[in-house]
Amino acid sequence: AIADSVMSALQGDMSLDGLSAPKPLAGRRAVVTAGPTREPIDPVRYLSNHSSGRQGYAVAQALADLGADVELVSGPTAIPLPHGTRNSPVETAEEMFSAVKRALPADIFVSVAAVADWRPATRTERKTKKPVDGPAPLQLVENPDILRSVCLSDKRPELVVGFAAETHDVLELARAKRVRKGCDWIVANDVSGDVMGGQENMMIIVTETDEIHLPRQSKTAAARALARRIASHFGGPS
Amino acid sequence: AIADSVMSALQGDMSLDGLSAPKPLAGRRAVVTAGPTREPIDPVRYLSNHSSGRQGYAVAQALADLGADVELVSGPTAIPLPHGTRNSPVETAEEMFSAVKRALPADIFVSVAAVADWRPATRTERKTKKPVDGPAPLQLVENPDILRSVCLSDKRPELVVGFAAETHDVLELARAKRVRKGCDWIVANDVSGDVMGGQENMMIIVTETDEIHLPRQSKTAAARALARRIASHFGGPS
Repeated sequence: AIADSVMSALQGDMSLDGLSAPKPLAGRRAVVTAGPTREPIDPVRYLSNHSSGRQGYAVAQALADLGADVELVSGPTAIPLPHGTRNSPVETAEEMFSAVKRALPADIFVSVAAVADWRPATRTERKTKKPVDGPAPLQLVENPDILRSVCLSDKRPELVVGFAAETHDVLELARAKRVRKGCDWIVANDVSGDVMGGQENMMIIVTETDEIHLPRQSKTAAARALARRIASHFGGPS
Repeated sequence: AIADSVMSALQGDMSLDGLSAPKPLAGRRAVVTAGPTREPIDPVRYLSNHSSGRQGYAVAQALADLGADVELVSGPTAIPLPHGTRNSPVETAEEMFSAVKRALPADIFVSVAAVADWRPATRTERKTKKPVDGPAPLQLVENPDILRSVCLSDKRPELVVGFAAETHDVLELARAKRVRKGCDWIVANDVSGDVMGGQENMMIIVTETDEIHLPRQSKTAAARALARRIASHFGGPS
């Protein structure tokens, strides 16, 4: 049973909170984004995506468990906000961008949120009525690129980690995204199955020099593995 | 305390389940739709609306409590499915339409769902990449009109009740909707505040002859008031 516990701890399946746990990220400030964003069309309709927020919440929790001072900027989700983190709930990409700017400076920025690339060009104050001659196309405009903006900011955190949720060519798109955004690591995620919204995840951490394949595991265990790598980057035990 | 209980029961705040409660809708079959629909753009993105499903679930529960055999056809929600009803979970308006057609014939149809009027004209199998020259407009097509189709069906239930969630000119739009859809009653709802997704509701039941204003109350109490009126229509105690 002791051997099982040790194995379990090594695999990141045990909670690291409690007084006896090591706090290698004590004194470090982390900002984590999570969940989808919702982009309103009118007072009742919106554009969104299937992100559940689970992976981002787990990352925020795992960093807090390692002693980091964590601010979680979260889009709307159906799951409870984690304990031990400061939570800034937002709806839209623009609100998320503002909350992230307010949260900086920080040592660590982890962008797990599935930020909508686009939002409706106009938001009507009244619920749109069905037109007689069929619906007009929905005009879209680009949302702020939060990850890229943080990377270009004069308050750029020492370690910036992005997530790439892709349905195909996952690793290739993740490598390209790392360079294009200017971040240090990209965590590649294959969401072609039921990962987005599901309980498990299979991550590949893409850095400038390495590509670390993590096993398929719970989002909590995957988050702990990522948090340990982050602690290791800052000189803590890996 | 007894007087309080009686008052509470009269006001519809007590559950009517249990052996001793009257079952005026015993032997009646009801189909209730609830929640939003989600209309996919690609494997991760979708169009939806702020409906929480609470009002529809409460109506399904209230009808079941009065003895009706209830099938609840529900879009995706973050709340638990009610007990004592048969539940058909769906995602899109087209899936909801199919499930409703399968559920007929019935004596009662209550359309509480906030069915998306439109869906993206095409659904891509891969996650759409951000184009370099900005987003293209999202082409939309009209969804099936479930309420109107049920009213025109040769399996039209004896009592068809629609809901009209509006942000302005609520009563006027509800009256017009009743006639346009061909249903018996429309329940008008002002969603200009936080009603959609909230815990309370203020309903006006619009029939051919009457407009019954219910007080602002919990969605559960409002559902019970509506269910009692439905029972009364079928000859039960009002």
